[in-house]
Amino acid sequence: MTERYDVAGVGNAIVDVIFAAPDSFLLEHRIAKGTMTLIDEYRAESLFAIMPDAHHLSGGSAANTMAGLASFGAKGLFVGKVKDDERGNAFASDIRRIGVRYDVAAAKDGAATACCLIVVTPDGQRSMNTYLGACRELRSHDVDEAAIASARVLYVEGYLWDDEGSKAAIRKAVKAAKHAGRKVAFTLSDPFCVGRYRDEFLALLESDIDILFANEEEAKALYEVEAFDDALQATRATGKLVALTRSAKGCVIARGDEIHVLDAAPVAKVVDTTGAGDQFAAGFLFGLSRGRPLDDCGRLGAIAAAEVISHYGARPEASLKGLAARAGLA
Amino acid sequence: MTERYDVAGVGNAIVDVIFAAPDSFLLEHRIAKGTMTLIDEYRAESLFAIMPDAHHLSGGSAANTMAGLASFGAKGLFVGKVKDDERGNAFASDIRRIGVRYDVAAAKDGAATACCLIVVTPDGQRSMNTYLGACRELRSHDVDEAAIASARVLYVEGYLWDDEGSKAAIRKAVKAAKHAGRKVAFTLSDPFCVGRYRDEFLALLESDIDILFANEEEAKALYEVEAFDDALQATRATGKLVALTRSAKGCVIARGDEIHVLDAAPVAKVVDTTGAGDQFAAGFLFGLSRGRPLDDCGRLGAIAAAEVISHYGARPEASLKGLAARAGLA
Repeated sequence: MTERYDVAGVGNAIVDVIFAAPDSFLLEHRIAKGTMTLIDEYRAESLFAIMPDAHHLSGGSAANTMAGLASFGAKGLFVGKVKDDERGNAFASDIRRIGVRYDVAAAKDGAATACCLIVVTPDGQRSMNTYLGACRELRSHDVDEAAIASARVLYVEGYLWDDEGSKAAIRKAVKAAKHAGRKVAFTLSDPFCVGRYRDEFLALLESDIDILFANEEEAKALYEVEAFDDALQATRATGKLVALTRSAKGCVIARGDEIHVLDAAPVAKVVDTTGAGDQFAAGFLFGLSRGRPLDDCGRLGAIAAAEVISHYGARPEASLKGLAARAGLA
Repeated sequence: MTERYDVAGVGNAIVDVIFAAPDSFLLEHRIAKGTMTLIDEYRAESLFAIMPDAHHLSGGSAANTMAGLASFGAKGLFVGKVKDDERGNAFASDIRRIGVRYDVAAAKDGAATACCLIVVTPDGQRSMNTYLGACRELRSHDVDEAAIASARVLYVEGYLWDDEGSKAAIRKAVKAAKHAGRKVAFTLSDPFCVGRYRDEFLALLESDIDILFANEEEAKALYEVEAFDDALQATRATGKLVALTRSAKGCVIARGDEIHVLDAAPVAKVVDTTGAGDQFAAGFLFGLSRGRPLDDCGRLGAIAAAEVISHYGARPEASLKGLAARAGLA
């Protein structure tokens, strides 16, 4: 089958609500720093009330990655569920506007479109509070097997595991990709998410995943080790292609005997680290889709991550295609 | 043959003259920052004159490594030349006091014992000005082949190449080690030193070196590449055991398919980076001598480097054996 898409991404369809505040705000409102916490509708409403000036921007981990891929000039498909409400319509319109195919029907009733209330502290760290809402309504019939099978890579986010109901949809997508001989890429998403689903993630890594994305904390959480090198050895032992990101320390890319230790791309000022991992994955997958060597894939990831952390919001503002060209990697 | 020594080190026998000064001092006296510059006797005297309160401490790259090894509890032998003068006698007495065997006869006449005028700036960086003096008098007859052959590892510093006359002595030592089936370890010493002797170092790496120590800048200079990963790929391709240090970024240890990406050990405050590489080598070689796995060897190196950069001077003040024990690596 010819490839209609470079990447098909499956993830939570979320609108980010971004609010810059000092660390004392986190303490006052009991928000865990630097991680993602699931919240209910009541908590979401009460946090909304204290963030009156917050910016609303389309987000969602895999959706952000698809936006990055589009900015590089890649062709993508996104699968994720919104409700037919103001936030949901904004999400759908945003992702289509940037050129990502998005055909999942919006839910007519039930929970509202998901939102993630993100507090960005002056150090650029983001603390996320996610209300999953309509994301929990993703079902098998939302997955178009033929479309998934026509993408070179299927990219799945670990956050999806937080909804039991989504699993049938994920399984269907993975099966369609595997059946078509495509690669399955997976991101561990968050260290606490890894803690919640460690055994399932390890089983999935063994059975279906070809490409694993993880940051240092997630990789250490997966194998319950304290040193980065121990996580590296454990992931290398899987024999899969692994891309481990380490914030300012750069990344390590490994596949069999091949291993690359790459620096982070320079950033004048880190404003908001939201989306760094999502955009790293975008650059890396873009490189893979263009048949670049693994070190160039890692460098493309670093370029995209550096762009997104230099401003508020989890999707690129500059053309990643242009940045890649300037770095001689287009 | 039974092993009488864990490591035999060959290097320049130098007394360090340490002076803390602001960056403006470097500019005023035209001292290149962060590297090693060779100076003549006249320049040494004029720099001495403007550093009246400087501390005098025994130094020399390989000699510092031997001091570190002694602090870990390893048995060592040092080969390097001093003159029978005040500095030379202090150097010889210091290295013997810490338990390193040192039998090279002091020169009775000729140039004075070497000194290295080190300016330490507030950022902890050291800028070195070396007057080689009596080091240039190291000759073949100073090398005891039987003693070298009785050490598990011969450790040679690249700085030795700055004296044409020392080369016969180095060749004799390397030949004795190789003949006895011992390992030869080598440190590239300094990026400018690499620039001066690149072809010789590359040939030596191919022919005789089993273990290569280099910091990031030295490794990049050796292969004339700009990215750390490119230097890593080139050193890995030699098939030798390589230990590449990256200051605060930690180190990468590689041998064949085995590769470790290790963090730097924590340091409360970096006071003086002089000797960081020397002590890393000490910890790493100590680990090897005790048959530790390569990641532990790297961690021992990191512990020793962290100790030495937390105070002025290039030799450990705390017991490295004690620090290794506290880290569970003794």
